[in-house]
Amino acid sequence: MKGFAVKKAPHPTLLLLLLSLLFHMGFSHKKLSRDTAPCKRFVLYYHNVMFNGTNIANATAATATNATALGDYFFGQLIVFDDPMTRDQNLLSPPVARAQGFFFFDMKTTYNAWFAYTIIFNSTKHKGTLNIMGADLIANETRDLSVLGGTGDFFMARGVATIRTEVVEGLDYVLLQMDVKLYECY
Amino acid sequence: MKGFAVKKAPHPTLLLLLLSLLFHMGFSHKKLSRDTAPCKRFVLYYHNVMFNGTNIANATAATATNATALGDYFFGQLIVFDDPMTRDQNLLSPPVARAQGFFFFDMKTTYNAWFAYTIIFNSTKHKGTLNIMGADLIANETRDLSVLGGTGDFFMARGVATIRTEVVEGLDYVLLQMDVKLYECY
Amino acid sequence: MKGFAVKKAPHPTLLLLLLSLLFHMGFSHKKLSRDTAPCKRFVLYYHNVMFNGTNIANATAATATNATALGDYFFGQLIVFDDPMTRDQNLLSPPVARAQGFFFFDMKTTYNAWFAYTIIFNSTKHKGTLNIMGADLIANETRDLSVLGGTGDFFMARGVATIRTEVVEGLDYVLLQMDVKLYECY
Repeated sequence: MKGFAVKKAPHPTLLLLLLSLLFHMGFSHKKLSRDTAPCKRFVLYYHNVMFNGTNIANATAATATNATALGDYFFGQLIVFDDPMTRDQNLLSPPVARAQGFFFFDMKTTYNAWFAYTIIFNSTKHKGTLNIMGADLIANETRDLSVLGGTGDFFMARGVATIRTEVVEGLDYVLLQMDVKLYECY
Repeated sequence: MKGFAVKKAPHPTLLLLLLSLLFHMGFSHKKLSRDTAPCKRFVLYYHNVMFNGTNIANATAATATNATALGDYFFGQLIVFDDPMTRDQNLLSPPVARAQGFFFFDMKTTYNAWFAYTIIFNSTKHKGTLNIMGADLIANETRDLSVLGGTGDFFMARGVATIRTEVVEGLDYVLLQMDVKLYECY
Repeated sequence: MKGFAVKKAPHPTLLLLLLSLLFHMGFSHKKLSRDTAPCKRFVLYYHNVMFNGTNIANATAATATNATALGDYFFGQLIVFDDPMTRDQNLLSPPVARAQGFFFFDMKTTYNAWFAYTIIFNSTKHKGTLNIMGADLIANETRDLSVLGGTGDFFMARGVATIRTEVVEGLDYVLLQMDVKLYECY
C-alpha cells in the first residue's frame, strides 16, 4: 500500500510531455497564419490574348457580354478565357499549365475585375487542378485571390494566389504574374 | 525485479489523461458542428441598386445578360454588382465593406438566384476579403451560402453566410442581411 | 530517495502510448490523401435539358450568352441551369436533389466547359447544399471538380466531384454522372 502511495506523483518528465501535448493540441487547428511558410509555392504568368474578330489563331479569350453603360470602365463586360500559363513573362514560352475560367469588370469609376478560374496542370510533372476565385482590385499593386480547392496532385489544396499586373495593352493583351501559395497540401 | 513489477500498473490519473487526449484527438478533425460557436461573426447589409439607364450616380449594379424566355422569373438574367455593405439597414450609412461579384436568376417557376462574390474590407479596422458562393433560394426565409476562403485579415477563413431578404423593390433595389459566421479563423 | 530514483524510468507502455500520440499528431493535418476513403460518398445523375424556345415545360437550362466566333465549339456560350439530379440515369426518376448554377464553353479547338453550381438537397433525408466549381475537360473520360463548401447537413464539407459523360444529344440533352466524394465531413 505504501508503495502505491509513493507512486501517486507521476514522473515530472511525463507531466512535461503531457503538457506539451496538450499545448500542441490546443493550437493544432489554428497553427496557420499569414506568416506561415506555404507548403507549396510557385509563380506562373498568365497571358490573356483577347479575340478581336480576326485573330482566331492567337486569341485565347473572348468577350461573352458587352460592357454596360454604367460608367466608362467596361462595367458588366464578361470575358471567358482559356489562357496559357508560363514560367516566365514570355508569351511564347512553353505553357506549363492553362487557366480556364472568366472575369468581368465591375466598377464604374475605375478598372476593376472579378475572377473565377481553374489552373489545369497536365504534364509529366504535375497533373491536377486548382480552383481559384476573388476580386482583382486592379488599382492595387498586388491583389489576393483565394485558392479554394484542388484535385489530382493538388488534392484538397487551399491557399492564396497573389496577382500582379505585368503588362496591359488595353484589352488586347494582359500579362499577370500569379504567385500561388498553398497552405494546405495533402 | 519485484520493484518493477509493482510499477507495471501506470497511475490511474495518467491513464485518464491519456484517454482524454486520445478522445480529444479522435474528434480533432470533426470537432466542428452546426452547434459550434463561430470563431468570428458579423452582420452586414447588402444594398443592390440596379442601373436603369439614367441613375449612373447611384447605381451599383447592372444587367450583363437579359432574361431568357424560359418562364417569367428572369431566368438567365445575370447582374454584375459592386455594392456597398453597411452595419445597418440604411443605404446611406457609411459602407464598411463592398460586395463585388454577380448573381443570376435560375428558376422558371419562381424567383430564385445564384451568387458568387467577394466581400472586400479596406478600413483601418479590417483589410482583406472573403469569397462566397451559393444558391439563394429566395422563397426561404433564410438561405445559407458558403464562405469558401479569405485573404488578408480573413486569411484562409471558411464558414457560412446566412442571407435574409429585408427589402425588395422589384429589381431596382434589394436589401439583404448577410450574417457571416466563420468557423475556421487563423 | 532510492525509491524515487527507481521511478525515474517511466513505464515502457506509457512511452509507447506517448510516442504513438506524438506520431498521430504530427500527421493530424496531413492525414488526407487521394487514397483516403471519403467520409461520405454518393453518386448522382445530372440532367441538363436545354431550352429551345418552345419546350418551356421540360427545359431546365437556358443559354444566357451566345457563342462567340472564336472557333467552332461554342466558346463563350454561357448556360444557366436548374437541373434535376436523380439516383439513376433515368431523366424521369424522382429527383433527389437539384443542381443550380452555370457552365460555359471555353475552348476554341474542342468542346470544353467550366462549371460552378450548388447541389441542393431538400428532402426528409437530407437538407443542405454543396458548392462546387471546376473545369470540365470534356475530352477526358472523367474530370474532377472541387467541392468547396457546404451548408446544412453538409456543413463545411469539402471534397471532389468526379463527373463522367453518360449521354450527349448535342446541346439539347446532357446526362452526367457526378460521383461526389467528401473528405471533410462535420
